[in-house]
Amino acid sequence: MKLWGGRFSKNEDEFMEEFNSSISFDIRLFEEDIEGSVGQAYALKKAGILDKDELDKTINALNELYEQYKAGEIKSYDGYEDVHSLIESLLYEKIGDTAYKLHTGRSRNDQVATDMVMYVKKEALNISNLLLNLLDTLIGNAKKYNDIILPGYTHLQRAQPILLSHYLMAYFEMFKRDYIRFKDMLNRIDIMPLGSGALAGSTFPLDRDYEADILGFKCISLNSIDAVSNRDFCLECIFNCTMTMMHMSRISEELILWSTKEFNFIEIDEAYSTGSSMMPQKKNPDSLELARGKTGRVYGDLISLLTVIKGLPLAYNKDMQEDKESTFDAVDTVKICIAMLKRVISSIKVNSGSMLAACKTGYLNATDMADYLTERGIPFRKAHEAVGNIIRYCEEKGETLEDLSLDELKKFSDVFTDDVYGAIDIKNSINKKLTTGSTSQEMVEKTMSIEEEWLKIEKSLM
Amino acid sequence: MKLWGGRFSKNEDEFMEEFNSSISFDIRLFEEDIEGSVGQAYALKKAGILDKDELDKTINALNELYEQYKAGEIKSYDGYEDVHSLIESLLYEKIGDTAYKLHTGRSRNDQVATDMVMYVKKEALNISNLLLNLLDTLIGNAKKYNDIILPGYTHLQRAQPILLSHYLMAYFEMFKRDYIRFKDMLNRIDIMPLGSGALAGSTFPLDRDYEADILGFKCISLNSIDAVSNRDFCLECIFNCTMTMMHMSRISEELILWSTKEFNFIEIDEAYSTGSSMMPQKKNPDSLELARGKTGRVYGDLISLLTVIKGLPLAYNKDMQEDKESTFDAVDTVKICIAMLKRVISSIKVNSGSMLAACKTGYLNATDMADYLTERGIPFRKAHEAVGNIIRYCEEKGETLEDLSLDELKKFSDVFTDDVYGAIDIKNSINKKLTTGSTSQEMVEKTMSIEEEWLKIEKSLM
Amino acid sequence: MKLWGGRFSKNEDEFMEEFNSSISFDIRLFEEDIEGSVGQAYALKKAGILDKDELDKTINALNELYEQYKAGEIKSYDGYEDVHSLIESLLYEKIGDTAYKLHTGRSRNDQVATDMVMYVKKEALNISNLLLNLLDTLIGNAKKYNDIILPGYTHLQRAQPILLSHYLMAYFEMFKRDYIRFKDMLNRIDIMPLGSGALAGSTFPLDRDYEADILGFKCISLNSIDAVSNRDFCLECIFNCTMTMMHMSRISEELILWSTKEFNFIEIDEAYSTGSSMMPQKKNPDSLELARGKTGRVYGDLISLLTVIKGLPLAYNKDMQEDKESTFDAVDTVKICIAMLKRVISSIKVNSGSMLAACKTGYLNATDMADYLTERGIPFRKAHEAVGNIIRYCEEKGETLEDLSLDELKKFSDVFTDDVYGAIDIKNSINKKLTTGSTSQEMVEKTMSIEEEWLKIEKSLM
Amino acid sequence: MKLWGGRFSKNEDEFMEEFNSSISFDIRLFEEDIEGSVGQAYALKKAGILDKDELDKTINALNELYEQYKAGEIKSYDGYEDVHSLIESLLYEKIGDTAYKLHTGRSRNDQVATDMVMYVKKEALNISNLLLNLLDTLIGNAKKYNDIILPGYTHLQRAQPILLSHYLMAYFEMFKRDYIRFKDMLNRIDIMPLGSGALAGSTFPLDRDYEADILGFKCISLNSIDAVSNRDFCLECIFNCTMTMMHMSRISEELILWSTKEFNFIEIDEAYSTGSSMMPQKKNPDSLELARGKTGRVYGDLISLLTVIKGLPLAYNKDMQEDKESTFDAVDTVKICIAMLKRVISSIKVNSGSMLAACKTGYLNATDMADYLTERGIPFRKAHEAVGNIIRYCEEKGETLEDLSLDELKKFSDVFTDDVYGAIDIKNSINKKLTTGSTSQEMVEKTMSIEEEWLKIEKSLM
Repeated sequence: MKLWGGRFSKNEDEFMEEFNSSISFDIRLFEEDIEGSVGQAYALKKAGILDKDELDKTINALNELYEQYKAGEIKSYDGYEDVHSLIESLLYEKIGDTAYKLHTGRSRNDQVATDMVMYVKKEALNISNLLLNLLDTLIGNAKKYNDIILPGYTHLQRAQPILLSHYLMAYFEMFKRDYIRFKDMLNRIDIMPLGSGALAGSTFPLDRDYEADILGFKCISLNSIDAVSNRDFCLECIFNCTMTMMHMSRISEELILWSTKEFNFIEIDEAYSTGSSMMPQKKNPDSLELARGKTGRVYGDLISLLTVIKGLPLAYNKDMQEDKESTFDAVDTVKICIAMLKRVISSIKVNSGSMLAACKTGYLNATDMADYLTERGIPFRKAHEAVGNIIRYCEEKGETLEDLSLDELKKFSDVFTDDVYGAIDIKNSINKKLTTGSTSQEMVEKTMSIEEEWLKIEKSLM
Repeated sequence: MKLWGGRFSKNEDEFMEEFNSSISFDIRLFEEDIEGSVGQAYALKKAGILDKDELDKTINALNELYEQYKAGEIKSYDGYEDVHSLIESLLYEKIGDTAYKLHTGRSRNDQVATDMVMYVKKEALNISNLLLNLLDTLIGNAKKYNDIILPGYTHLQRAQPILLSHYLMAYFEMFKRDYIRFKDMLNRIDIMPLGSGALAGSTFPLDRDYEADILGFKCISLNSIDAVSNRDFCLECIFNCTMTMMHMSRISEELILWSTKEFNFIEIDEAYSTGSSMMPQKKNPDSLELARGKTGRVYGDLISLLTVIKGLPLAYNKDMQEDKESTFDAVDTVKICIAMLKRVISSIKVNSGSMLAACKTGYLNATDMADYLTERGIPFRKAHEAVGNIIRYCEEKGETLEDLSLDELKKFSDVFTDDVYGAIDIKNSINKKLTTGSTSQEMVEKTMSIEEEWLKIEKSLM
Repeated sequence: MKLWGGRFSKNEDEFMEEFNSSISFDIRLFEEDIEGSVGQAYALKKAGILDKDELDKTINALNELYEQYKAGEIKSYDGYEDVHSLIESLLYEKIGDTAYKLHTGRSRNDQVATDMVMYVKKEALNISNLLLNLLDTLIGNAKKYNDIILPGYTHLQRAQPILLSHYLMAYFEMFKRDYIRFKDMLNRIDIMPLGSGALAGSTFPLDRDYEADILGFKCISLNSIDAVSNRDFCLECIFNCTMTMMHMSRISEELILWSTKEFNFIEIDEAYSTGSSMMPQKKNPDSLELARGKTGRVYGDLISLLTVIKGLPLAYNKDMQEDKESTFDAVDTVKICIAMLKRVISSIKVNSGSMLAACKTGYLNATDMADYLTERGIPFRKAHEAVGNIIRYCEEKGETLEDLSLDELKKFSDVFTDDVYGAIDIKNSINKKLTTGSTSQEMVEKTMSIEEEWLKIEKSLM
Repeated sequence: MKLWGGRFSKNEDEFMEEFNSSISFDIRLFEEDIEGSVGQAYALKKAGILDKDELDKTINALNELYEQYKAGEIKSYDGYEDVHSLIESLLYEKIGDTAYKLHTGRSRNDQVATDMVMYVKKEALNISNLLLNLLDTLIGNAKKYNDIILPGYTHLQRAQPILLSHYLMAYFEMFKRDYIRFKDMLNRIDIMPLGSGALAGSTFPLDRDYEADILGFKCISLNSIDAVSNRDFCLECIFNCTMTMMHMSRISEELILWSTKEFNFIEIDEAYSTGSSMMPQKKNPDSLELARGKTGRVYGDLISLLTVIKGLPLAYNKDMQEDKESTFDAVDTVKICIAMLKRVISSIKVNSGSMLAACKTGYLNATDMADYLTERGIPFRKAHEAVGNIIRYCEEKGETLEDLSLDELKKFSDVFTDDVYGAIDIKNSINKKLTTGSTSQEMVEKTMSIEEEWLKIEKSLM
């Protein structure tokens, strides 16, 4: 059943029909399409196109359809071009000709744009909620592990000792930025296209502000051509998913490394691991590998839609039908991955012993020794060089900085006194950090308390 | 049912099970997995792991399963992790413990790599055939339209008159390159990974060359680690699809332009057009717009898999499970788009009158006039400048080059004589082209005859 | 000159030195690096690391360096690893050992992160200003062309008549969204990383809030690991450039189409066109083609950096050095393209006659006729079908809707009366549009006045 | 100096001139443009456009220009639009009006296409040579390390013991595929566009086959429209670079992991490492991190050009000027990275002790134990499960498989006898692998000898 047959003398090719059809994926907009139609019905009533009776019939039938859909009763939609024609057709079965009035002053162009922005709003909110849950888990674990020490890395080489809480809070910051980015986006995209017609607006006196109010939009679009050809909100949503997945890929990579026999910092719970069909001993961190891998598909979704829209003249072009699958896929992927990550983190077993042991080798306190010299008046560059030389000396002797006697140290700089051993002690190294945002227990607690407060407020606003 | 439960004390999380499962998409490898298992059974027989009776039972059961699958009788595979465990389990139902012998010396790592390369080989051949069909249509239409003249464009500005056959043969060349690229690829990737085990090879004396022979592979992989972690063939296949789609997007763009009211060069058949739900007069070239738009999704597939593989250490990592959907999607898309394009081109109506009329304005013969001067000894740069000035003169007067009198022309260069009018005649302009590959009827016919011969040979090899 | 030689016994390979060096591109951060160092000097003074005299010497020398740089006096920086070592070295030449104190409590990791966020802030502001200028030009031209009528297109087929002002305001909306997106971003990314050290913070009592105040940051980062490994702001900036380029590609495509001989709606000024080395008559819209093409490079920049960051463990990794060229390139490209577009639009010549003529064919008033029937009680779907049939009738007879007699019309529906001809008049068609955001003169003026007010406010805030 | 001024009355805008100019990057085609012009001169002589004297003058002047360019004497080319106008202008300075004859029958469209394909051919050959060198290094090291044992990994979990030579040969296979892919491409793209004019061919009797012969092309293009609008060879070249970089990113990732304190399998030579400006102890594998990171930029180059070409109508459009920087960047990047990797690998220090030690924990011989059971008649699935149970038992007791007594083993399966200990010995585990391509010393040597022979042949062909 098509919404546009009149001027055509030939039938569409069957092959073309399948090629052209979007029902297999835009069926996911059933809810939005029903909701948008409810809004449209009210607006048509106010404009005098539907009378009270027709309105009631229409609304009731739409609600019924939605219930049937939720109950899984609408199963076969083969032969329909898209969700819009499906719903119009089902509506016709219920209320006859009145169903055909619903498309007055509406085109599929503004209809689908409205459906899509409603979908993105709904899902961005869902993702935001999932992110808040993840943030909750991260800060909860940070508090739980606040006294565990491990090496911080740069270039995957041991750099300086840090607190595990500090490490977890780094990811808190990333996913917090993701959350805020979605929130900003939600605020910016909350604009209703409905009432823009095919591209030029409508000759019927539809009160768009009234309709936006019913449909829960903050405001209405101000240019009908832009309204029907705009998919910025899809692209922004996919980009936001992309950023979240990028962060996801980083924490996944890191947890995969940590769960190797070589690092042995953590154990992924068996519930989130799998085995090998050939090697009986294997316990693989599949959940995290998949999350890391799925980053690729969301990057692909982004490039996909960016490519589609590039160079398209105004207004609607059929190419834009390709907006849906990429948006849906990005949203689905990011949702399942956030949920998975939350579970994996919640169930991780931390080997604090291995973490601490790893701090003992690798001269992680070298910077502390350089700082020690600097505090005693040596310009930092010179202090850095001196400690570099001390390390070369240690490497040749197979010793750590702590192993060296004061006499040995004095060969490199005469400002060394006995208190250097305290200055390069690992715990001291951590707690001597004075700047806001640093890894000292005090500062990490300060950050955690600020962020906990922020999280509480955000959750209360949801 | 999992192939690896032994060393695990906990069950997999249900959410994780779904996250991890690939059965919803790798079911498409059913045929390849069966076929690979047949090969494996023969190799196990030769290695003495299966006896004659076990072999027969296994082969028969596998064949039965394939028949059932083709008949649509294997419907519900919920709860299975992937197609490999599904098939093993179904096999067990048929032949009991013997089914469990089939995985001897085989890992899912080499199994899935083998399935995938078999899939890519099969589909690359399918695409090649579709490309040959398209080439057939293009050359057929070129021959049909060999005397139609239209403007050739650069920068979308009218440039020089060309033959419609010449234009169509330009796309012939592109899709021919695509065909050859697939052919080269098929030759390069025809390497069997099976027998590489999880990553290190097998302790069982599997005769891999024998197995390759049964499975129709040209040769076997020479390094087991590489064999299980290699997805180059997927990436190449997607890239080849990308190139074909890129060409598709160019011809689609052009045919969309040509079917505008403004160009009015062609009419897309109604069977490949659709209408508007609001505007009763619309006849939109949806088929071509979709083909152009779908280019984006294949670009996305390419970036998706490139991102997945980037930076993965050897050998198999679960991230690689993400190879399937992008490969499947690229293959499906390019197949349907080639088939669609063939139909659209076959049914196009050409408005030769509009095409010719468009050659009359825009000074398309300006280069011919410059060449005329050059042939009479004026250095090309100077001839170019003179004709540029003549055109400015024409524009001010609102005339074409043909309109100018010899006296007027002589003001710009005294080498002009009466024969200039013949030199700038549109048909002459086309047929005066002398170089191989140019748009003169003679040269286009030469190209068509070479390509027709080539096409015949390729088709005979299929 | 390197900042880290101490522990190394061998020299860096020369080839490696070049491979590793970033000075050829990060020299662009000279200004930011100087500025950041000024902030650092003040913070070190407050922390008691520098005394008053050292501070003054340092600040003066840094200012001198900046002046020298601006004057082009710092030319050769071969052999330096990056802009940071260059500046430290130049500073040492001026003030000796005090220069080496400046790196106290600072690592290149937090230093370069700070430089980059300062760069992005500066350039995002520059882009925002360019966008405001472009918006000015768009609304200015919209007001100028408010009574010009042209066909609105969907699927590149003539759809409904619209005002040229309405069309231009569609792009106003797009670039306005781009502007707001940059503004939102600027607000979100305004966070200072400095003071985060290599990854763990600093042992020196640096007052980071004080430093942020000096450097013009809204706030400071709260986690040192995240601060040095975060490049979200680069990615957001490139994405925002991507969106702007995507809109750029759409308007470019459209103006290129409009300047074809076939559309003939506009003429691109010669100043923004170029010719052909072979064809003397050509006038090509190169400026717009380049803008459309450069969209590709910004998409590439985005994928480039997304790929770099994907899967990187914390904290800093050298891969991140690849953040710069992609960010710089995206920023440069979007800036020059916006500036170019503004000039092209300002100098365009509009052929209003061609635009109006194009409204006469193509049944652009078909929707108006359907609306006419709907207003008289026919359900929209049935009205749509009736008009579809009328058009088929017209096509066979080679007539327009206006050409049909009332008798002919009545064959399709008996509600037609004489007033139908007014209803389908082109000007009426435009002005009968009643919804906010539609193309009627009244509504376009309403939109323009709202947007003009908004623009005035934004410009006053800059 | 422009090649197309005649028909223009206004000057190009200065800003536009800069925007439009490509000389800053296409200067890199100087050599190709000179060479192409030499070919063109000979063809013009044969066609009777140039006489013997003019030919000689032209060739000599072109050769002189090339020498000057190589000697760095052509420095300032500001104000020139592109390399073609620069060379024509320099030629004019040398030989006057004859220079202007050189563009007879040639357009910049076929000229630049020819330059680009010549560039790609040259660089693809360079890359191929670099790849052969790298393969040489890989096989050389494989032979050197043929008795070193390390764990093979899947999912970054220890899987089965392998030989280091086997591991290195895995990368040999990847880079060999890259080499062959370039070779195939070189064969396919070796087609000369010159003589195609602007798009329609040339009216001058240029003998294109003769010209192709002079310029070293295998054959000539058969369709002039395609010839000037084709950039497939650039895209293929970038894609091939992409694949090589993808492999580069994998080996880089792995070597970075191996050089961590945790793995401690290798030491990157100091010459290819760098330090930290803050942490004196750091030795970072920057060379490999950069190679991994630069993968992103080549992915970006690919997307960039794919986006540019998408949807472009025929023939040449200015967007295509954007082909150069992405192609140049991909080529430069892959060349420097291959050269770097060769050096890094050549200078790596292997810690064979750590590698062997890592094989002792992680039950790497579990598969061998399962195979042992299978060889004794237990279906593989059941054997797998039994060993899984044994491992759980070991984990609880903190023992390895070797530690278990025969009595303990018999509790899990009664087929165990004393020979199990030999079957699960690490060296045995490796050498018991029987399949071609597996990790046993015999099979690795077989692969190395096949590949060494192949490499010798390829090098002899270069």
